[in-house]
Amino acid sequence: MDKAAITFQDVEGGVASPIGFYAAGGSADVRKKSDKRLDTGVVYSLIPCAAAGVFTINAVKAAPVLQCQSLLESEGRIHGIVANSGNANACTGAQGKEDAAAMSLAASQACGVTDSSFLVCSTGRIGELLPMESLLETIKPLGEAAVAGAKDNESFGKSILTSDTKNKVCTAIFEIDGKTVTVGGCAKGAGMIEPNMATMLAFITTDIDAESEQLKTVLQKAVKTTFNAITVDGDMSTNDTVLLLANGESDVLLNAESEALFQEAVNQVCDSLADKIVADGERITKVVEILISGAANEGDAENIARAIGNSLLVKTSWYGNDPNWGRLMDALGYAKAKIDQDTIDIFYDDVPALEMSTPVPENKPKWKEIVSKPRFSIRINMHQGDATYRLRASDLTEGYVDFNKSE
Amino acid sequence: MDKAAITFQDVEGGVASPIGFYAAGGSADVRKKSDKRLDTGVVYSLIPCAAAGVFTINAVKAAPVLQCQSLLESEGRIHGIVANSGNANACTGAQGKEDAAAMSLAASQACGVTDSSFLVCSTGRIGELLPMESLLETIKPLGEAAVAGAKDNESFGKSILTSDTKNKVCTAIFEIDGKTVTVGGCAKGAGMIEPNMATMLAFITTDIDAESEQLKTVLQKAVKTTFNAITVDGDMSTNDTVLLLANGESDVLLNAESEALFQEAVNQVCDSLADKIVADGERITKVVEILISGAANEGDAENIARAIGNSLLVKTSWYGNDPNWGRLMDALGYAKAKIDQDTIDIFYDDVPALEMSTPVPENKPKWKEIVSKPRFSIRINMHQGDATYRLRASDLTEGYVDFNKSE
Repeated sequence: MDKAAITFQDVEGGVASPIGFYAAGGSADVRKKSDKRLDTGVVYSLIPCAAAGVFTINAVKAAPVLQCQSLLESEGRIHGIVANSGNANACTGAQGKEDAAAMSLAASQACGVTDSSFLVCSTGRIGELLPMESLLETIKPLGEAAVAGAKDNESFGKSILTSDTKNKVCTAIFEIDGKTVTVGGCAKGAGMIEPNMATMLAFITTDIDAESEQLKTVLQKAVKTTFNAITVDGDMSTNDTVLLLANGESDVLLNAESEALFQEAVNQVCDSLADKIVADGERITKVVEILISGAANEGDAENIARAIGNSLLVKTSWYGNDPNWGRLMDALGYAKAKIDQDTIDIFYDDVPALEMSTPVPENKPKWKEIVSKPRFSIRINMHQGDATYRLRASDLTEGYVDFNKSE
Repeated sequence: MDKAAITFQDVEGGVASPIGFYAAGGSADVRKKSDKRLDTGVVYSLIPCAAAGVFTINAVKAAPVLQCQSLLESEGRIHGIVANSGNANACTGAQGKEDAAAMSLAASQACGVTDSSFLVCSTGRIGELLPMESLLETIKPLGEAAVAGAKDNESFGKSILTSDTKNKVCTAIFEIDGKTVTVGGCAKGAGMIEPNMATMLAFITTDIDAESEQLKTVLQKAVKTTFNAITVDGDMSTNDTVLLLANGESDVLLNAESEALFQEAVNQVCDSLADKIVADGERITKVVEILISGAANEGDAENIARAIGNSLLVKTSWYGNDPNWGRLMDALGYAKAKIDQDTIDIFYDDVPALEMSTPVPENKPKWKEIVSKPRFSIRINMHQGDATYRLRASDLTEGYVDFNKSE
């Protein structure tokens, strides 16, 4: 598969880019600050969609996560998504479940759809009931705008943000047999960002013609190495959700011929959104790519990468531009992986710090220079086997602590 | 067993308190700052001791840890301990192992002991060779002072500190059959503090008459609920070591009659030192006791406590005096334990925040008051079984990040 066959737009478009998808965002004042902040959004497709989702594996799941899972399991077609930020509708008991169902129904009615086939997503504060009256009032005109043809990627993208500082959208396009397939994406991240999802929502839409089971396979493959391979603070949230909707309006079938191109397009969209999430982590200053090789097996490679990427001492040293390989050695030592402490190579970008566990101190000025950059990589070869893993992590700053010390 | 049968001195005495134990501390300028900071210490017993140790389970082990493990496995008697701070002698290869052996030999020679039977401990920076010349020069007079009868608990205690702000010593004494048994302890902690040891050293001496195997059983029991049940930053170090030495000079045998009292005395010493370590964590402002009950099994109870105690979002909220039970629910949800999200009780001290997962918002002012204290407890009942776990954790502050951003 030729990656160049995909036209990738890194900061353009979004969920309303594929043919037949519409989107709008508005304000329901979920945060009760009367600041007109965008906090409610609707995505709509006139043609009902095949759909797939990947969700948090946190045992405490928010009501909208349960609603999405139940709707996808019922195997009906999906008309769209209704989402809000500012309140996660998590730990809200029976009332929370009723509220999620009511949001779905309100979106269906606003779009003139007879059955309740809207997926629901919420993100924000845990443990408080949604302000349903203003939410329902807001969903109605947004649904009507979507039906009327609104393709407002920007206001929809903004409506799902919480502590994010940037709107996160992208689009991948490819041609096949003279027809064009578009994959549009939109995400939010910022805090509670750790493997197996985060306080993150990501919505991906496409006009390819596919079955839900096919979408599920494609989405799971893409998520594994993108959304599930980033960490900001190691906290896995109650609401993490990635959704993929396909309405078939391109007239291109997802089949043996188109499969590789479509997978690559979805991969690129997920990779771009995942990178935007980690790069916009709360008050971070650096994105570090941790590349483990030579591990005994993939589980070991992942454990090593995560031990490093979640170590407070490692993350604070990155923040301080300190190439502290001793803290890397300490973290990989407790990763519960097969390790020979005498056969480890560590590189900062391409500059060796340790070769077969022997320091290369003459390179220290170069390590220091590399660690001072806003993006760099740490490559570690364990010499235990052939397994590899790639994790993108952020540093930890005083700003993160200050930002999170109260809500 | 009557706890009151133990006379406990929380901030007095130390490793030289039991009969026949001697100690001294001096400066070898390990940190090369020419500031005369105490950084080298010797503990000595004229009568060779039975001994036991508990060590880091980090796969990357420092040279002195390997030296101690090997010496204890050889089942010889032990004459004492030689320790330094400022340099961990970790990730130092073959030279590091030679240096650890040379420290042991130097202490033996200084004390006039013919065989090399001194345990060695180092703590501090990883990846640099020890300044052996000045260390060996410093060990000699310290050994001689110990042989001459020095019982300098204070200078020995200070010599092992790194980023600690306080000397950590205590003593437990009990009487049996008209004879007195003393257990003295000394520790250092501060950073890389997480379960299964930390960048922590703890030395416990006693004049009871015991076999090494007996000491091992007593020490492992005591460590499990004390040193292994604290967390500051979740980083487990390469050097963590707890040693217990017994020289028999009290003429009290460790047997069925004395066993319970001795175990309790060692428990109290370990508990006091562990508490001092977490309370003196790097730039912390709070110590929080996490008490899990009603878990399906002990592993689950421990996983839940650790998920909460190591969550950055939970720790920063404590720092900000924010009783954010939503973050507690989020953390326990990813603890990989058996959980029913609808049957959870959460208390701040004795004030309920959640009962069967239903918030008790009228108590909010009280939670806020409790979380603002320098010490408080969080009690969580999972209603899944009978298992319990207790973990002491600290908050996370901007000061921690600032302190650790470079060495």
